[in-house]
Amino acid sequence: MKKRNLIYGQSGGVTSVINASAYGAIIAAINNPMVENVYAALNGIKGILEERIIDLKAESKDEIEKIAFTPGAIFGSCRTKLKTEEDFERLFKVFDAYDIGYFLYNGGNDSMETAYQIALKAQEYGYPLKVIGIPKTVDNDLMYTDHCPGYGSAAKFTAISILEATRDLESMHTDSTQVFILESMGRYAGWLAASGILASINGERGPQIFLLPEVPFNEEKFLSKVEEVIRRDGYCSIVAAEALKDSEGNYISTEDYTDAFGNIQLGKIGIYLQKLIRQNLGRKVHTALPDYLQRSSRHIASLTDWEEAIGVGAAAVKFAVDQGLSGVMVSIVRDLDSPYLKHYEPVSLEGIGGKVKYLPEEYISPDGFGVTEKFVEYVRPLIQGEAPNHYLRGIPVYANLKKVPVKRK
Amino acid sequence: MKKRNLIYGQSGGVTSVINASAYGAIIAAINNPMVENVYAALNGIKGILEERIIDLKAESKDEIEKIAFTPGAIFGSCRTKLKTEEDFERLFKVFDAYDIGYFLYNGGNDSMETAYQIALKAQEYGYPLKVIGIPKTVDNDLMYTDHCPGYGSAAKFTAISILEATRDLESMHTDSTQVFILESMGRYAGWLAASGILASINGERGPQIFLLPEVPFNEEKFLSKVEEVIRRDGYCSIVAAEALKDSEGNYISTEDYTDAFGNIQLGKIGIYLQKLIRQNLGRKVHTALPDYLQRSSRHIASLTDWEEAIGVGAAAVKFAVDQGLSGVMVSIVRDLDSPYLKHYEPVSLEGIGGKVKYLPEEYISPDGFGVTEKFVEYVRPLIQGEAPNHYLRGIPVYANLKKVPVKRK
Repeated sequence: MKKRNLIYGQSGGVTSVINASAYGAIIAAINNPMVENVYAALNGIKGILEERIIDLKAESKDEIEKIAFTPGAIFGSCRTKLKTEEDFERLFKVFDAYDIGYFLYNGGNDSMETAYQIALKAQEYGYPLKVIGIPKTVDNDLMYTDHCPGYGSAAKFTAISILEATRDLESMHTDSTQVFILESMGRYAGWLAASGILASINGERGPQIFLLPEVPFNEEKFLSKVEEVIRRDGYCSIVAAEALKDSEGNYISTEDYTDAFGNIQLGKIGIYLQKLIRQNLGRKVHTALPDYLQRSSRHIASLTDWEEAIGVGAAAVKFAVDQGLSGVMVSIVRDLDSPYLKHYEPVSLEGIGGKVKYLPEEYISPDGFGVTEKFVEYVRPLIQGEAPNHYLRGIPVYANLKKVPVKRK
Repeated sequence: MKKRNLIYGQSGGVTSVINASAYGAIIAAINNPMVENVYAALNGIKGILEERIIDLKAESKDEIEKIAFTPGAIFGSCRTKLKTEEDFERLFKVFDAYDIGYFLYNGGNDSMETAYQIALKAQEYGYPLKVIGIPKTVDNDLMYTDHCPGYGSAAKFTAISILEATRDLESMHTDSTQVFILESMGRYAGWLAASGILASINGERGPQIFLLPEVPFNEEKFLSKVEEVIRRDGYCSIVAAEALKDSEGNYISTEDYTDAFGNIQLGKIGIYLQKLIRQNLGRKVHTALPDYLQRSSRHIASLTDWEEAIGVGAAAVKFAVDQGLSGVMVSIVRDLDSPYLKHYEPVSLEGIGGKVKYLPEEYISPDGFGVTEKFVEYVRPLIQGEAPNHYLRGIPVYANLKKVPVKRK
């Protein structure tokens, strides 16, 4: 069989370990005898369309190693959608010119849909291409995988942040702040907000109220719950999902941006809730909106998540090159909760885009303001261990690649 | 000389290492042969007035050790001010009943003023009391000390957060977010906002714009600077101090709370700036308001700051008990920038309250949107090293004290 070239691209919102997947894929590809050149597209498919392609074998080994320690998307992300037949034709013209036989696309729901469409087009055009989706999203809402790389680290950040802030609140509540709100990302589902429960797994008091998008927000019930908690405990620590909705399914708090996929920009639910509590209960409230910090907090990434991010990257190369698979995503299959065991399997990319995995009912407490022990069993393994960091002068050190362009064809 | 009892209290906004100072003071006091009992007041002077006093010798050694690893104020903080002669009389009645000979008060500007007033009253009343102030504040704005314990850790959190988020922004800017704003605490001065410069000490691109309260905010200049940076670099990363003021000295963004000392509650400047940029430049902006996270982020505390926090606590006992000093604060004196050398000295508590140490002009760049190399030399030693953490099941473990009350007198 003829050796062919492999290209890797990143897409969608980033995570603190998406580069660990890049690292896993790159090392596996470099070490695979059937792969000729290892390329990366800058800014995902946008970079392929614009022929912004770099040669990874031109990078030093040391810098390649550092990729796994770097937050953000080292090759640049994109929110580009392939819309017209011309887009696809252009894409395959570039694939052909660069002799691309393997295309690995690392992203969330929308990116998996893009990868699926490309796999279908390859069949339609009769172009020999193996397309593999590598999952990533702090939202953890992809179908057909136990969980998504990136989620465990964002969950660890969320849990530690609300744990630390709740100790702060506890210190202050007697004559100052009585409510603390942590706003949590998650475009549709409450996975990340729910992970705040991990603050309490060592017997600490974690957040007492969770506001999940799976539970319609009821102002009156919420305010009376806050007041009840303050009367009982003296203060109230809340994790609120940015995607909170009312009983008619409308977002409580949105901004005015919409991306190329029609996704509305969420955020600032914490500010909304702060005003609500202040005006109705007269309590002093502090609110944290970590925003990008929760998805880029590489310094406190989960070791388990980091290793799995590397794992799904390496598995993608195995599936594409060694097993000749295409149109599949690397899925994480859980074999055991405790001790945690898992393996990687290919699942079809069909129907991953456009679908959302919500928190199942059994993970949400009956009153809708908490999560269950079953959810704790699910999420606990994903935050185990602290991923290594390299510090120099008290600050983490990241990869800085030369990004040598492949000669334009 | 007769052995007497020592009491320690915490006051004001907390830091991630104020408990390290508590630990330093407690261990030094327990080991000091001239100290009979070691007490803590719950919620600072409020707890003394209400006779909520606990016996630290009743705690296990293991839990005492864990205090240094715990964020927040483990004995509870307060924002209480001693207002009337009756307050002082009540306070000294309690001191007398509990045979308190040493009073250590751990706090910021307002707390140092409280400690000073108590030292003066002790003289006036002829009550034999040694009063020592232990500094703490993430704001770093106390006079007569090189820097304040708590600042280095908050600076480390700020620098790492903006470093990580800037990598995220860099990933996204080609067809999504082009501006990221990190809102930084600091009631009056720009010390914490300025610390974001540490993101760039290893050659990384750090934030390109700093908005400091020492520089009057000019909307037009700011917007044109943002646009200039985006045109040059493709994106713009900003650290904005919550205490930003206009040319007439009015806060740009405030909330509607005022504490017992007349301090107005600040915040949400990030939201204000986001709207401003969105409306005037049409750029997509993400904003993080870490709020309590920046002052309770014990998981990424600076080792240097943590050790100094322990140091000032221990020095307070030495000054009070061994040297018989009163009415002084433990000051950190810098002997050398690099390698960093320092020692602890007593300075009078007079005039610390009510005064604010601002960023000196030589630390601010000529255009007002940056900081100088001189500032980097000042701040760099304070974030060195990573303070140890104890993790269990992926989550930090904190002290949980029995808090055995001393029998009410």
